[in-house]
Amino acid sequence: MSDGRGRPGDRGAIFFLTDYGQQDELAGVVRAVLVRLAPGAPVVDLTHEVPAFDVRAGALALERATPHLGPGVVLAVVDPGVGSARRAVALTVGHPGGPRALVGPDNGLLVPAAEALGGAGAAVVLPQAAAEDRVTFDGRDVFAPAAAALWGGTPLASLGAPLPPGNLVRLPEPRLEVGGDAIEAEVLWIDRFGNVQLAATVADARAAGLRPGATVEVGAAGVSRPAVVVRAFADLQEAGAAGDLGLLVDANGHLALVCHRDAAATVLGVQAADTVTVRRHGGGSPSGPSTGSPP
Amino acid sequence: MSDGRGRPGDRGAIFFLTDYGQQDELAGVVRAVLVRLAPGAPVVDLTHEVPAFDVRAGALALERATPHLGPGVVLAVVDPGVGSARRAVALTVGHPGGPRALVGPDNGLLVPAAEALGGAGAAVVLPQAAAEDRVTFDGRDVFAPAAAALWGGTPLASLGAPLPPGNLVRLPEPRLEVGGDAIEAEVLWIDRFGNVQLAATVADARAAGLRPGATVEVGAAGVSRPAVVVRAFADLQEAGAAGDLGLLVDANGHLALVCHRDAAATVLGVQAADTVTVRRHGGGSPSGPSTGSPP
Amino acid sequence: MSDGRGRPGDRGAIFFLTDYGQQDELAGVVRAVLVRLAPGAPVVDLTHEVPAFDVRAGALALERATPHLGPGVVLAVVDPGVGSARRAVALTVGHPGGPRALVGPDNGLLVPAAEALGGAGAAVVLPQAAAEDRVTFDGRDVFAPAAAALWGGTPLASLGAPLPPGNLVRLPEPRLEVGGDAIEAEVLWIDRFGNVQLAATVADARAAGLRPGATVEVGAAGVSRPAVVVRAFADLQEAGAAGDLGLLVDANGHLALVCHRDAAATVLGVQAADTVTVRRHGGGSPSGPSTGSPP
Repeated sequence: MSDGRGRPGDRGAIFFLTDYGQQDELAGVVRAVLVRLAPGAPVVDLTHEVPAFDVRAGALALERATPHLGPGVVLAVVDPGVGSARRAVALTVGHPGGPRALVGPDNGLLVPAAEALGGAGAAVVLPQAAAEDRVTFDGRDVFAPAAAALWGGTPLASLGAPLPPGNLVRLPEPRLEVGGDAIEAEVLWIDRFGNVQLAATVADARAAGLRPGATVEVGAAGVSRPAVVVRAFADLQEAGAAGDLGLLVDANGHLALVCHRDAAATVLGVQAADTVTVRRHGGGSPSGPSTGSPP
Repeated sequence: MSDGRGRPGDRGAIFFLTDYGQQDELAGVVRAVLVRLAPGAPVVDLTHEVPAFDVRAGALALERATPHLGPGVVLAVVDPGVGSARRAVALTVGHPGGPRALVGPDNGLLVPAAEALGGAGAAVVLPQAAAEDRVTFDGRDVFAPAAAALWGGTPLASLGAPLPPGNLVRLPEPRLEVGGDAIEAEVLWIDRFGNVQLAATVADARAAGLRPGATVEVGAAGVSRPAVVVRAFADLQEAGAAGDLGLLVDANGHLALVCHRDAAATVLGVQAADTVTVRRHGGGSPSGPSTGSPP
Repeated sequence: MSDGRGRPGDRGAIFFLTDYGQQDELAGVVRAVLVRLAPGAPVVDLTHEVPAFDVRAGALALERATPHLGPGVVLAVVDPGVGSARRAVALTVGHPGGPRALVGPDNGLLVPAAEALGGAGAAVVLPQAAAEDRVTFDGRDVFAPAAAALWGGTPLASLGAPLPPGNLVRLPEPRLEVGGDAIEAEVLWIDRFGNVQLAATVADARAAGLRPGATVEVGAAGVSRPAVVVRAFADLQEAGAAGDLGLLVDANGHLALVCHRDAAATVLGVQAADTVTVRRHGGGSPSGPSTGSPP
């Protein structure tokens, strides 16, 4: 891992994620501060449309993005309300080839991404000295300067008082129960196309004996519907009629419910944080592939 | 034209257009992959708000942008559905000063832009080897790596199997009939302000004898309305009352219907892909300027 | 201040603000022109979601951003209508560490930012030679080339005919009356969270004797409601119930009405450009702190 002190070209980028939205200049002002304090830093906007105040959604979006980020520093800001009281933190991680530090509020936003990068090796509390006569805009006044400093090679320890990484605030784990022939899982995310990402992963699907070609019962919003386990969207399109449900492993390695020519979230009547059950049809043996097909 | 192998500063930019929207991290993750695989590449977002699945709208937006792009590589992704089956392609063009390569799906999205750049000189099919256990996110996993490689100077031929450029999938040509005193043309685009861009160009207007000052009959949605041919928005504002229609040559060189203090698309009741007719009032001589004025 | 002729790394950024929105490629095409004509220039998007045609909102957003911008050039485009007649201008300012030039329409958009940077030292009218056969897209064809040239070190005087800075078009000053115990002020901005920014500043609050802890009467939309003067959002949260109003000095140094767990703009029924009055409760002495607390 680079120590961040090499030539600017070696320092990677600053990856920027917030719930600021686009309609105001808020994200733009933070970008300007980053470019001013870290000249030469490429600023990569991940998204600024995390639903306002939704720390969980922000943490999940950042976690999904993390495996694809190169060297650099992550700057993420989502708070559960305007001016909510919480610590500001910066932490370092040791994942070769990925970001070397993350900066943001200590409300759980950064932890899943940090764990995907091997876990926080060290953390500090950033001072939030209020301006004498006005409210602080933390993204602009606290987090961006810290991210710019870390990008430029300033050691973490010089940015604030040490915080044991184990003391970082964590969000509750998403609900997930994996049995021999069924999975009960929280909906993590409804994407733009209405695909329903579950907390279960490809490993959970294997444990529950869900194999391509199998038919499963999907329980959501009090109703049970059949779905077919497929390898790709195209398999569902070849096999099915409009409205048919499919279950696949999505591009983030999570199980996701998808729908042929419709939004699975609408068909199922679910939204983020709901619970969905997926049960093998007829309870076939987990040791051999099911041969079920969609009705 | 640069061969793309010079200093990074000579390689130009990566121009990025999709229908991913902004609310998720999808475009952001692709940006991160580009910056990781092509360090130093400026990533220029053209737009990510192409209407979902609207390949035609994406192709037209990219075509409109193309004359203004400098050196570099175009990365564009719009598909007609999630996970639709189609080839992934990269192609090279030979327009001095403009982009040297385009990367995206083989569904017609890239062809109008490539033709505006002199046509594809060579093309390859990019391998879409599926990840073993999950769905591929083509923008992130297939297209961005190819665009980054081309930006960095990797030869096209090393990226995939050759494809005769004539075999690239093409969209239907927009409807356009130009007569001696009338034009029948498809609506290409309704812009943010409700201006109605037609498939006809300034050359078509000359062929149909439409000259500034002339009054024309505009047929749309079953109704005929008068409009005046103007050189600029300001001419309409000086001459007209609110709601008056004008016909001008827009900043992309296309005929467009515009409206004084209103959205022409709303006044006319048209949307993209509708057909509009424009007929000279009274059939005045095409050899001299009409002196008609708005009613 | 840099003269803009040093190494590219010394030239700072191009700060870009418009009302173009994101759904079209308009902002993207201008970004591409900037990168083509000013290779190496970091383009920092401030926002492109200024409400369409709202010059006042654009001027205020740019003014709010200005204190946080480093070296470089500002490119801002908001016009009160499509193709409205007005001069195109560029001007230079002399604020150490901040932008050295601003480019945009002469309709008042740039003036508040220029004054925040010490005022325009010189200005020129940019030629708007229309293309022979089509409408001009000023952002792409006039403003971006000028901004790129200024970023690269071209002297202002070579870009157009001189214009006495005093002749620049100015917007009306926001309404603001500060008395011994009351302030009457225009609403400048409703932010994403419904906070209501007023034209009054921290200095005005001092002049009107508004001190933390004081209770004030807020008159808006014909109704008077109590609010408590607080130093920070957290103070309101600790003291209050949902719906309680607070008055604080926001992160731009302006007085702002905020609300505990609700949007102050909705509670008050106000929008941008409305007038709000803030009056000290009971008319306590301005020489000592009020000890009022929220009801």
